[in-house]
Amino acid sequence: MKLATIKDGTRDGQLAVVSDDLSRYLPFDGTLQSALDDWATIAPALYALSESLADDDTLGEAFAASNCHSPLPRAYQWADGSAYVNHVELVRKARGAEMPETFWTDPLMYQGGSDSFIGPRDHISVPPIDGLGIDMEAEIAVIVDDVPMGAKVEQAAEAIRLLMLVNDVSLRGLIPGELAKGFGFFQSKPSSAFSPVAVTPDALGARWDGRKLQGTMAVDLNGSPLGRTQTHVDMVFDMAQLVAHAAKTRPLCAGSIIGSGTISNKDADGGPGKPISEGGLGYSCLAEVRTVETILHGGPKTPFMAAGDTVKIEMLDDEGRSIFGAIEQTVVVQND
Amino acid sequence: MKLATIKDGTRDGQLAVVSDDLSRYLPFDGTLQSALDDWATIAPALYALSESLADDDTLGEAFAASNCHSPLPRAYQWADGSAYVNHVELVRKARGAEMPETFWTDPLMYQGGSDSFIGPRDHISVPPIDGLGIDMEAEIAVIVDDVPMGAKVEQAAEAIRLLMLVNDVSLRGLIPGELAKGFGFFQSKPSSAFSPVAVTPDALGARWDGRKLQGTMAVDLNGSPLGRTQTHVDMVFDMAQLVAHAAKTRPLCAGSIIGSGTISNKDADGGPGKPISEGGLGYSCLAEVRTVETILHGGPKTPFMAAGDTVKIEMLDDEGRSIFGAIEQTVVVQND
Repeated sequence: MKLATIKDGTRDGQLAVVSDDLSRYLPFDGTLQSALDDWATIAPALYALSESLADDDTLGEAFAASNCHSPLPRAYQWADGSAYVNHVELVRKARGAEMPETFWTDPLMYQGGSDSFIGPRDHISVPPIDGLGIDMEAEIAVIVDDVPMGAKVEQAAEAIRLLMLVNDVSLRGLIPGELAKGFGFFQSKPSSAFSPVAVTPDALGARWDGRKLQGTMAVDLNGSPLGRTQTHVDMVFDMAQLVAHAAKTRPLCAGSIIGSGTISNKDADGGPGKPISEGGLGYSCLAEVRTVETILHGGPKTPFMAAGDTVKIEMLDDEGRSIFGAIEQTVVVQND
Repeated sequence: MKLATIKDGTRDGQLAVVSDDLSRYLPFDGTLQSALDDWATIAPALYALSESLADDDTLGEAFAASNCHSPLPRAYQWADGSAYVNHVELVRKARGAEMPETFWTDPLMYQGGSDSFIGPRDHISVPPIDGLGIDMEAEIAVIVDDVPMGAKVEQAAEAIRLLMLVNDVSLRGLIPGELAKGFGFFQSKPSSAFSPVAVTPDALGARWDGRKLQGTMAVDLNGSPLGRTQTHVDMVFDMAQLVAHAAKTRPLCAGSIIGSGTISNKDADGGPGKPISEGGLGYSCLAEVRTVETILHGGPKTPFMAAGDTVKIEMLDDEGRSIFGAIEQTVVVQND
């Protein structure tokens, strides 16, 4: 089953069940959060609509990703891991810092803000500040049901209700200053965007093993391929482990979103990933491009994003159809 | 006007208008979040109920803080500043670290989790892990209306709709490890609790100057006074500055909560605060008690909280009546 939230002028939008090929949808009374608040009761009715859409291809209204909010336009919890430790190791290497061994056994996770997500086709609006270092991060995220404090990994896996793609917009220029203050990211992690549809695990077939999603994360910058990384490769912590980490000292409310962190693959020879132009799998964020450039050439060459630049993030199935719909965004600078 | 959320078995509870003396309440259709989502429309109806309660002291049901959720049982945004820089300076001094000069001009703020607040009389439930270092932090928080990205301080001040007290529960034992990882707090900042009622600025009279709250933050540990700090003293950044800081690179959604950080006063002679038993104003958290002990005696003497310990956080008006109601909580350890 695939779910979306249609823009209707309200803060939380209109919940919709979307056909598997993303061509049509049927509205459902309420919001995605209200469905998640009472999933056991409401999910059967949503599945029934999904089956109706599959059985009758004349049913429903035309679906347009451009008319969508992120599936949860705002959420009560957005916690983002960094499960592709290759990314962390590279970034540290570029600045000559050792990575603690514990990073391979204890997940990194930051508390994100969740009150103002942007839609999958909305502009990335940034303030008129020099040196922001605007970057994308292509990631996977899960939406969970209630997770009790101290849940084991198996219990966390069972609580996963939906999967999405994410563009975790990052302002790299603000990160060093914020991290130096010791309290983590805040201004450097503005509003994130999620894919047009959220997909239930059962609709992902063999791509979802209950813990990891298998697929190619296609990231295009200004229409050119930037990344084609493999989401199930080099993932040191799976989604269930990340959920359990988030719930270690407190419960998670239904509708909580947990992210994977930037998808990042090593080369076949174990080295940092090569660009697509050199036969590699490329990158899911510009920070990593610049990091590899720094390691190989002594300094970064690729600039961060600027006004007018576009990013597209998508995952295709074996027949080349979009699974989650595409995140497609343009950077705009807010008037001062 | 004073607002509360009564526990009624739903996730977001029943919005209630509470009499100024906290003795009676009238229910109002909807939740506090739904009122904040449409404040301009709904606030007049809430004020009308508040006036009815003031005019007729036989009106309403008996109000009991023990039956309350935090005013927002879950929120879309909880960002906590550290505006009492004395606290930060002390903690750094105790571990021999210099505090950057910018801490006096650029607010510290961390992104908190907001999906699972605990009620003002709920237990502080912690997992059965040794060395958690369970601590309270008594703070002030504001709930804001929508704040656009890049809002100026004056605009941020105008968006403040409600004030509350907070117990920002902290697990000190987990903080060094998390901060060393560089991503800020996560497991070390479990669910926070807020005061039984949230109060509009107009109901605070001269105590609220539009930016800072004037009052004594009464913190009791196991029934004995721990802190009687002055909330308007030594506050380096006011609430409007903190809101503007939070909105620098993204909008804030109506219902966002912004906190002051632990209230902390210097001594009259500029030294670290003295305990109440020595004629000082005391402390709003045990970390600061232990820090001062370390500075004065070479090591901490006061233990962190353990199972069965209680904390009470309250602010009284000039007649000794509770303004926000009291946060009163007992630490319990969850069964393994």
